[in-house]
Amino acid sequence: MFVLHERLEADTIEVCDWPFSKVLLMNDATYPWLILVPRRDALRDFHDLAPEDRPAMMDEIDRASVALEDVFAPDKMNVAALGNMVPQLHVHVIARFTSDQAWPGPVWGVVEAKPYGEAALEKALDALRQSFA
Amino acid sequence: MFVLHERLEADTIEVCDWPFSKVLLMNDATYPWLILVPRRDALRDFHDLAPEDRPAMMDEIDRASVALEDVFAPDKMNVAALGNMVPQLHVHVIARFTSDQAWPGPVWGVVEAKPYGEAALEKALDALRQSFA
Repeated sequence: MFVLHERLEADTIEVCDWPFSKVLLMNDATYPWLILVPRRDALRDFHDLAPEDRPAMMDEIDRASVALEDVFAPDKMNVAALGNMVPQLHVHVIARFTSDQAWPGPVWGVVEAKPYGEAALEKALDALRQSFA
Repeated sequence: MFVLHERLEADTIEVCDWPFSKVLLMNDATYPWLILVPRRDALRDFHDLAPEDRPAMMDEIDRASVALEDVFAPDKMNVAALGNMVPQLHVHVIARFTSDQAWPGPVWGVVEAKPYGEAALEKALDALRQSFA
């Protein structure tokens, strides 16, 4: 049975379930940042994905990227499966701006997460869900 | 016509060509680190990959990851398409150890690249090419 890792649960807001992944929004208003978590047990590394699940993973990375571009018009998209701290496979899809606080480096560990305010969160979730639809 | 970006050319050693990607070894002995560069023009983001090329990309990420595990027995694999500095699409596949200098953070920008010595480079290339075969 799939159970979301407690660290992912603590750091994110659930957006929706796609056929293969749970879609999470990182609760960090500094960057528009989605996390896809394949709803499968015991996956850790990206190449642990079963061959038959890889097309779905690619489709959903594409879908997340296109929605982030649609809603936020970023300068670049970053896609990464790192998982050094959280052992449950999850794929970061992060909209980057040349003006963001970590540019041109990666986002991890640069500035402390800045949780969304209630109105900003609703706005982001509405826009993403509308773009997904 | 595919031309490797000059920054990738400067920072890496060419290992071989796979059906879809050029395989590069980052010239940094701190981490066993492969870079896959799809031999296609004008790709920038991971989701720029054409749907028909995605299975090959996934296969080659898998192949690089399995070889790094085989040769180096790391604790974790990191896979990432960032490209904030080099606009040509390239996918990092990095073998991580809980004892490495950047753990558990990402590797970028933590310590200066430490070029391989001649003997260490030959050894790494031989081992990787043998594992690929």
